[in-house]
Amino acid sequence: MPKVVDHEERRAALAEAVWRLASREGLEALTLRDVSAEAGCSTGALHHYFRDKEELLLFAFQTTADRVARRIDAAKGATSGPLDFARTLLAVGLPLDAERRAEIRVWFAFLGLALTRPVLAGAQRDAYRAWRRQLTQNLKEAQERGEIDPTLDPELEATGLVALVDGLAVQASFEPRALSGARQMELVEERLAGLAR
Amino acid sequence: MPKVVDHEERRAALAEAVWRLASREGLEALTLRDVSAEAGCSTGALHHYFRDKEELLLFAFQTTADRVARRIDAAKGATSGPLDFARTLLAVGLPLDAERRAEIRVWFAFLGLALTRPVLAGAQRDAYRAWRRQLTQNLKEAQERGEIDPTLDPELEATGLVALVDGLAVQASFEPRALSGARQMELVEERLAGLAR
Repeated sequence: MPKVVDHEERRAALAEAVWRLASREGLEALTLRDVSAEAGCSTGALHHYFRDKEELLLFAFQTTADRVARRIDAAKGATSGPLDFARTLLAVGLPLDAERRAEIRVWFAFLGLALTRPVLAGAQRDAYRAWRRQLTQNLKEAQERGEIDPTLDPELEATGLVALVDGLAVQASFEPRALSGARQMELVEERLAGLAR
Repeated sequence: MPKVVDHEERRAALAEAVWRLASREGLEALTLRDVSAEAGCSTGALHHYFRDKEELLLFAFQTTADRVARRIDAAKGATSGPLDFARTLLAVGLPLDAERRAEIRVWFAFLGLALTRPVLAGAQRDAYRAWRRQLTQNLKEAQERGEIDPTLDPELEATGLVALVDGLAVQASFEPRALSGARQMELVEERLAGLAR
């Protein structure tokens, strides 16, 4: 009788292997051979999951996006309202601990490659759209509750907040000491407070 | 008599070749062979300039940084004061035209690679420091003139402004239509106006 392979389980194990490699060494040198060594399976078995390097990169990116989404879901219950949830949606993108620092390294490595590869660019675009949409929704709810300025354009402000967080992540990744977590959050709080005026 | 090679001239020609390749195809696949073909010289001649891929990447990044610096210098004379110069320092980082879009593609491709390569990370860190320092200086002058809130921390605000511009450049690179140049500048102007309150 042939061995029954649990595909979901193997997929999860591969995601873990790809994630460990990508966060440790970056994406540009990530190969199917490295992944098979890290995951302890043959490169032949990997070809069921990835046809080429591009599919492997997409998988690494999706694994990162899934990690972030799980963290958002876990935090959602503990938030006190739409503005507080907006704060959570922003904090997930900042390198405030080792886990997020690793995620951000993979995120920006992917971004660098996506600029000249349309398929990867599509995945990146979708991820930013989803992030902005969620944040826009929270700002609209905060507006309905009278918690922020009713004349503001929630979508534009969401774009600016995502931009601020992304840019802080860049600077903090290269200069963690000059730009501490507290300084990063100070700028996010200042901006959120600015919306309430 | 041996031919006299003008090293400065050759260096400039190489910078142009590296720049064209990098902005067209990204950095991760940039090789000494490609550069020699684009520049019309032998790979042997290139070895006088770059020992390895890392030095080639650094050269591509420095070429981009030099282009940006020249644009800032050219614009400086036309600015009406420190806040207006701050606006110029921010606008150089936004993909508002084809030239800046190409520069930003190279910048973020480099950034993606720098996250796992200490030498490249050092160059990136220096570039951000210089950008923030220049902007901080302008905000201080604006404070001395009473043009912005005297209680603000110019360095922290400069960090936030650079972050905003970097993050807008990311989103606009992937969605130029959703985030037009006008929308990008609207967010920058809103933030600058916020400093004056």
